[in-house]
Amino acid sequence: MNLITLTSDFGTCDWFVGTMKGVIFSINPRVTVVDLTHEIPPGDIRAGAFALAAGCRFFPHGTVHVVVVDPGVGGPREGIAVQTEDYIFIGPDNGVLSLALARERIKMIRQLKNEALFLSTVSHTFHGRDVFAPAAAHLSSGVPPRKCGPRQEELVQLEWPRPRVTAASVKGEIVYIDRFGNLITNIGGECLEPFRNTATRVFGKGRKLCSVADFYQAVPAGKPVAVLGSTGFLEIAVNGGSAARMLQLEVGDPVQVRAQS
Amino acid sequence: MNLITLTSDFGTCDWFVGTMKGVIFSINPRVTVVDLTHEIPPGDIRAGAFALAAGCRFFPHGTVHVVVVDPGVGGPREGIAVQTEDYIFIGPDNGVLSLALARERIKMIRQLKNEALFLSTVSHTFHGRDVFAPAAAHLSSGVPPRKCGPRQEELVQLEWPRPRVTAASVKGEIVYIDRFGNLITNIGGECLEPFRNTATRVFGKGRKLCSVADFYQAVPAGKPVAVLGSTGFLEIAVNGGSAARMLQLEVGDPVQVRAQS
Amino acid sequence: MNLITLTSDFGTCDWFVGTMKGVIFSINPRVTVVDLTHEIPPGDIRAGAFALAAGCRFFPHGTVHVVVVDPGVGGPREGIAVQTEDYIFIGPDNGVLSLALARERIKMIRQLKNEALFLSTVSHTFHGRDVFAPAAAHLSSGVPPRKCGPRQEELVQLEWPRPRVTAASVKGEIVYIDRFGNLITNIGGECLEPFRNTATRVFGKGRKLCSVADFYQAVPAGKPVAVLGSTGFLEIAVNGGSAARMLQLEVGDPVQVRAQS
Repeated sequence: MNLITLTSDFGTCDWFVGTMKGVIFSINPRVTVVDLTHEIPPGDIRAGAFALAAGCRFFPHGTVHVVVVDPGVGGPREGIAVQTEDYIFIGPDNGVLSLALARERIKMIRQLKNEALFLSTVSHTFHGRDVFAPAAAHLSSGVPPRKCGPRQEELVQLEWPRPRVTAASVKGEIVYIDRFGNLITNIGGECLEPFRNTATRVFGKGRKLCSVADFYQAVPAGKPVAVLGSTGFLEIAVNGGSAARMLQLEVGDPVQVRAQS
Repeated sequence: MNLITLTSDFGTCDWFVGTMKGVIFSINPRVTVVDLTHEIPPGDIRAGAFALAAGCRFFPHGTVHVVVVDPGVGGPREGIAVQTEDYIFIGPDNGVLSLALARERIKMIRQLKNEALFLSTVSHTFHGRDVFAPAAAHLSSGVPPRKCGPRQEELVQLEWPRPRVTAASVKGEIVYIDRFGNLITNIGGECLEPFRNTATRVFGKGRKLCSVADFYQAVPAGKPVAVLGSTGFLEIAVNGGSAARMLQLEVGDPVQVRAQS
Repeated sequence: MNLITLTSDFGTCDWFVGTMKGVIFSINPRVTVVDLTHEIPPGDIRAGAFALAAGCRFFPHGTVHVVVVDPGVGGPREGIAVQTEDYIFIGPDNGVLSLALARERIKMIRQLKNEALFLSTVSHTFHGRDVFAPAAAHLSSGVPPRKCGPRQEELVQLEWPRPRVTAASVKGEIVYIDRFGNLITNIGGECLEPFRNTATRVFGKGRKLCSVADFYQAVPAGKPVAVLGSTGFLEIAVNGGSAARMLQLEVGDPVQVRAQS
């Protein structure tokens, strides 16, 4: 398979993403390029990391995943290529790769130092085009990752809140809000297993918000409901509406699932 | 031809659409995937139906059109695959396919029941990724539609306003507003044929809005004009501006073309 | 190479761009299509011209670049195909191609008149779909540009401000604002060469704005800085923020680089 995915905060209103593809196809005309998303809020490493972790496992073995959320571009942060059992991940070593990589078997981390894999002129502001895209194109056409540069043992880890599970409750927080206004939490399905046969309620900021159900339309239109979402995490939604707007909750706000007393 | 189109209300700010493509390429690496649009307003079945109907006939014979505007995901609505003379259409059976299918020769409707065509785990909230994308990929690689599941005779029809034509006027309404603020009506070119040699005026909400011309720049900049648009329907535009903003009209507002007295 | 790029003001909320691709793949199923951007503000020929000029050179030899920012669609403006040493450019002859072509070696300009290269029915409002996309598809599959129509000697040139360089300063203006709020000026790197060993300051609307540095993070977060951007032009940025919002400057506002006294 010969596939590259692109995730960035470049938006689509300028020529940035298209230009990266021009660079890629100049090097590897046969590759397929898929945009995961380019609407990560500017510089939001956590959102980029979450999007990559949510999407990367649905791509075929051998895919090269490129992520450019890179507020430190041009400065001292390294670029890295990480070979895992199934994929290659490329991006700045600022934590944006770490959530996805936490679920992969890492075989090797290489610094991106080999200028033969870059454009001949590298700008100080657009390594997506000048470094990451051409390196990805070379790797997708068979250049082995060890050619990228020296080995590195660790990568920068994003701080990520972990849910706390007790006999009576799970405490987590909102980590991502999607286009529909669904409030995605860090509470994975496995945290809810102990409560499978218990009635539960979901609280946010002290208020009772909703109960847990299987799908959005399990509650009347306009009503909130928590469901185990497609990322494997509990999310709070409003049937036919936006939970973010209706409940006025934000990324970082605490959420709690409690057994009903 | 080996082509899949995707139409949805998923937006592009999250990983949803990219993930569907990952699923598709995992099953059929050689297919070409084209986004028709993903900016259908959340849950707006009518807008999704109109976009599909406006775009689908410009694709080659054999294209698989996937539409996911699916507010009832996870609930009792069926998913269907519809084989027509030229295409296969896949989506929820909630009316979103019906406008496009009204102009096609339907050969067979099948319910999507065969789990062998889905991802191994199907979520309750993202059938675009777990059901429709993999089914489309299988169909695009030659799996016959009859493998999808049992036959169904009818599909859910969207309620759609029909224009009323008299000797003196055509009464219709605004059915879609595009990115330029053009107000697209349900008045097709054929309704205007009887008035071809007659001076006409276009009225909206009782006010006289504009006359009919061949193209936008037939009127001075900033002025409204009605033209037979690229979808085959009369649309009200403002040369160099937004008719929606300038005329303060919305989807559902009545529009009338009258022979000038 | 068999590649078409698309640049337009069509946005992605409707079916317009997807439909152009349907037309293209109906004619040339093997071509690769890349979106440069479709978010050019409606009718903004200057922004479209700048985006194309910024991006086009990163594509492989033989690429067909299609640009549709076309407020005069349906009126008397011509459509043209321009063969250069490396590429073919297609679009309305309204200046939108001229910035990019100023840096190319033009071999031939042809008017798009040959209806055999268009869709069988040409609307008055969507030449992107009916004229430019099919012509591009035919050219990408080997139809020679001379088949498009009669030769034309000149093309419409966009008025473009030129920077003024003196011993003590460079005077330019803001020509484009990107998604990050970076203020891109018309001051190319070559204008700054004489000041390479001189301390400089950047002024806008009379105010001192910032100094020049190599990359965004050369200044503290939230502070403005001017860098030679990835397009080869000086741009004013705010580290981790939006210069457009913080400095309240717009396209057309004057910018001056002065040797520090």
